[in-house]
Amino acid sequence: MTIKVYGSKQSTCTQRVVLALHEKEIFDYELVTVDLQKGEQKRPEFLQLQPFGKIPVYQDDEVTLFESRAVVRYIAEKFPDPEGYFLYGRNLKEKALVEQWVEVESQNWNPVVETIVREEYFNPTFFGKQPNEQLVLENLLKLEKLLDIYEAHLSKSQYLAGDFYSLADLSHIPYTFYLIKYAKKGQVIASRRFVKAWFEDICALRSWQKILTNFLE
Amino acid sequence: MTIKVYGSKQSTCTQRVVLALHEKEIFDYELVTVDLQKGEQKRPEFLQLQPFGKIPVYQDDEVTLFESRAVVRYIAEKFPDPEGYFLYGRNLKEKALVEQWVEVESQNWNPVVETIVREEYFNPTFFGKQPNEQLVLENLLKLEKLLDIYEAHLSKSQYLAGDFYSLADLSHIPYTFYLIKYAKKGQVIASRRFVKAWFEDICALRSWQKILTNFLE
Repeated sequence: MTIKVYGSKQSTCTQRVVLALHEKEIFDYELVTVDLQKGEQKRPEFLQLQPFGKIPVYQDDEVTLFESRAVVRYIAEKFPDPEGYFLYGRNLKEKALVEQWVEVESQNWNPVVETIVREEYFNPTFFGKQPNEQLVLENLLKLEKLLDIYEAHLSKSQYLAGDFYSLADLSHIPYTFYLIKYAKKGQVIASRRFVKAWFEDICALRSWQKILTNFLE
Repeated sequence: MTIKVYGSKQSTCTQRVVLALHEKEIFDYELVTVDLQKGEQKRPEFLQLQPFGKIPVYQDDEVTLFESRAVVRYIAEKFPDPEGYFLYGRNLKEKALVEQWVEVESQNWNPVVETIVREEYFNPTFFGKQPNEQLVLENLLKLEKLLDIYEAHLSKSQYLAGDFYSLADLSHIPYTFYLIKYAKKGQVIASRRFVKAWFEDICALRSWQKILTNFLE
């Protein structure tokens, strides 16, 4: 099967999709670079694939698909898990809890962390814009409250959806990594024992390590 | 099976969950009212169910689950579709397209429409706050652009994910209804032939009509 991922190595949503492929031990995909600084995501030929003009787009012999969280769900169901992996849980109840925490990431976590990383890293680095420090501060306060809830949860649960690494954990990795490494806000993670252990654990998995080596270093 | 939905009749996310139950012809659930004006969603007993202090929460004999889009996915998989219904599609490819459009609603549509409805309806009606008209205007412009993309898509596809009504269409109903009826911005829908026909079609289904009768009138 031919798999193409249209996106960018620096894009966290592209990384989410590639991370899911790696977890399934699929490495023979083609990354087709879409250059956001040149505005390639708004060109007519790309809008044929993704009418909203966003990356990434996933394509295989059967589907052309966008929205990274939809793509990772498709990958999770289509390809078999390697031994000992249960990206979508082992039954409907576990799958429901995976979905719950994928949605917590999407609705609660992402808007806050994305804002901080955009203001503190993407805007100054790629678009020559100064960060809005008031907005950063407001979102850091929201993040501290969220992290207190994660800390309480992770003190009782090894991973977000239970005792197994899942799509829910995976979905948190790229932006949280950027928050620490590029936006320099790692203290909010490091100061919470269970959150810190959880994030170190899921980042140590070979799939993310491979992205670090191939995409970010 | 005993099913409880903790939420509020006026909450669009509660309506999303109840709508999914109705589509499965499940009517014997209990709606446990959580009064947001009294701040009941932040009380310790509710935080035991939903640590982030948000509604709705779904509970049956097997799971306690939050985040409305996770709950509707669970309902879609757990309970059989009535004759002629395919809430999650008929195969993996159709399911992937359902997921794609559920995510478009979640990531693109909802932030824009939610902002307009909050400013123009919820804040003045329930919390005595004046709308931020500049914010409304910015979001209306974004919505017009989104709707142009929906219009082009719906000129070629009867429903969002194909020729069948799905979770993706369902997920758009509550907030879009509020946009038209309470925030009085129906012109953006009415002025687009295919969007208008699609929205009238999915609102005419008995499941939403029942919510209108029982919840909103």
